[in-house]
Amino acid sequence: MPQTIRIALDVMGGDFGAPVVVAGAAKSFARHPDIAFVMVGDQSVVEPLLAEHPAMRAASRMVHTTVSVKMDEKPSQALRHGRWRSSMWMAIDAVKRGDADVAISAGNTGALMAMAKFHLKTMPGIDRPAIAARWPTMRGASIVLDLGASIGADAEHLVDLAMMGGAMARVVLGIERPTVGLLNIGVEEVKGLEEVREAGAMLREAGHREIDYVGFVEGDDIGKGKVDVVVTEGFAGNIALKTAEGTAKQIGEFMRQAMNRSVFAKIGYLFAANAFASVQDKMDPRKVNGGVFLGLNGVVIKSHGATDAEGFATAVDMGYEMVRHDLRANIAEILAKLSAERAVRPAPESIST
Amino acid sequence: MPQTIRIALDVMGGDFGAPVVVAGAAKSFARHPDIAFVMVGDQSVVEPLLAEHPAMRAASRMVHTTVSVKMDEKPSQALRHGRWRSSMWMAIDAVKRGDADVAISAGNTGALMAMAKFHLKTMPGIDRPAIAARWPTMRGASIVLDLGASIGADAEHLVDLAMMGGAMARVVLGIERPTVGLLNIGVEEVKGLEEVREAGAMLREAGHREIDYVGFVEGDDIGKGKVDVVVTEGFAGNIALKTAEGTAKQIGEFMRQAMNRSVFAKIGYLFAANAFASVQDKMDPRKVNGGVFLGLNGVVIKSHGATDAEGFATAVDMGYEMVRHDLRANIAEILAKLSAERAVRPAPESIST
Repeated sequence: MPQTIRIALDVMGGDFGAPVVVAGAAKSFARHPDIAFVMVGDQSVVEPLLAEHPAMRAASRMVHTTVSVKMDEKPSQALRHGRWRSSMWMAIDAVKRGDADVAISAGNTGALMAMAKFHLKTMPGIDRPAIAARWPTMRGASIVLDLGASIGADAEHLVDLAMMGGAMARVVLGIERPTVGLLNIGVEEVKGLEEVREAGAMLREAGHREIDYVGFVEGDDIGKGKVDVVVTEGFAGNIALKTAEGTAKQIGEFMRQAMNRSVFAKIGYLFAANAFASVQDKMDPRKVNGGVFLGLNGVVIKSHGATDAEGFATAVDMGYEMVRHDLRANIAEILAKLSAERAVRPAPESIST
Repeated sequence: MPQTIRIALDVMGGDFGAPVVVAGAAKSFARHPDIAFVMVGDQSVVEPLLAEHPAMRAASRMVHTTVSVKMDEKPSQALRHGRWRSSMWMAIDAVKRGDADVAISAGNTGALMAMAKFHLKTMPGIDRPAIAARWPTMRGASIVLDLGASIGADAEHLVDLAMMGGAMARVVLGIERPTVGLLNIGVEEVKGLEEVREAGAMLREAGHREIDYVGFVEGDDIGKGKVDVVVTEGFAGNIALKTAEGTAKQIGEFMRQAMNRSVFAKIGYLFAANAFASVQDKMDPRKVNGGVFLGLNGVVIKSHGATDAEGFATAVDMGYEMVRHDLRANIAEILAKLSAERAVRPAPESIST
């Protein structure tokens, strides 16, 4: 286990850039004084902000660049103009060179994924990386993946997602053998996509020691927290995530309107203010901020671009936990085992021949 | 426009069967005394329930059968054992024979879809039917489809869904030229599935008079009510629907717990009780109950199996509106036009050759 956790930050990333990133980093540093930051960005912008946090400044190394990736740049554009010299790339590069244990950016998701994949490459046996995140549930939190790194998934990719998600649940949720479900549109074996059914059969048959595969789950099981890890391909995963966010906002807006409509409601709101705050707190997207890129030779975390310092601090906390519990080695070990199993065992299609 | 709206009910369908169906029908009948029901079910069960509603009884014709489809039967099983003689089949058959304008069942979704497709067949030019429903939004309600009738969709099927959803929005929402969006995982043209992009290009290029295609929408745009009609294939659509339901339940549960935690919160709840009720009312799944099967030679509506009389009444109201505004003819006309356009216009793939 490393003495200090070295975190590279794309200080210029996100809708609000350096002020939010530095303030967020400071909040996380206050909780984890064993972090050493690599701050990548425009020195003239970052230095004055860092000056407000002398303890963190002492634990930070500055890497200067004036190039940054824009939020609306296409991944290919970003790779062309930002490779080697943008703050986003150089934060990833710090991980690649072994100067940092994890890179965090609130910048453009597509560009970050493209750069991370290009520079760090996927782990042996993994074709495509995934994005995983915590999802608040009635039971606490679950890990859901893939939230949009790639579209579509064959059965083997879904199994990879299950194993990587399981590793993340161990680290983030502290559950030794997390329960895992495949997102589907019915609990009967007959329903759903061929790939999902095949992945279910593979997971059931393999009986992995690292995860407890429980079967199919449906969209409403996510919020119930029926399983610790919900596995799906990126299109459905992204739509589920965004739809849940939209529904939460919608209810919040209905609630706000209703509480403003009458004097009675306003009085009620005052009495129940703490109760409202506790619900808001439970659904607060800032408390679960941080999409973890899984399946790369290095840990990269995407913070929401529009988050504030509190939200960015959560992403930094997430990065800290990932390194502290050695997520990468954990996943590498599981994947090596999986690949060894696949090598000795015939593929499902060839069993019947 | 028909003088009376003839609605065939699978009285034995749903988790609670005849008591909920008859009570629900009575509620809708009170609002629409021009309904004539065809009540299909076990006479010895239905008659005593009908006796409580003499006015509706006078407007109802009883069709007797003791066979009903079970909630957990597989579609193939249901077709085998329930064809010709189950209450579900005979309600659909009433539409097929022209004895009813719409069939409504709270029974097994898969069985209902299989029977409806088998008996009524799809409309000319339509390969697969779809399930569409109202979705409560910040702006009121939108139509979302496909909610799980079939998995996957090529570009042409997505265009069909857009046109059928548009027709339903005209009928249900009363909007002459509804706005339509394709559900995707990013608003940039570069993102998302090939089929979705292709469908977007087809809709944009065609410039249909019946709908106003506005482009891609994301999961969180559904709750915002950004468009009147949200189009997606059935896997993602079902997951979006269930995830939204799960999130709403989750927030409701958090709220309930929070309001019970302290005396202050309880007092606040009392003052704001009306406000809470208004929010609950807006998100009440019973108020939007009724999945409409689109693309068949006949209108069939699926009520939620676990709903109560209020919820079932909503599904009956929905059926009433569909027939009153002649949804089926509306869709048939649009599809005929679409198919004529496709016949004269080369498919997109062949344009470049």
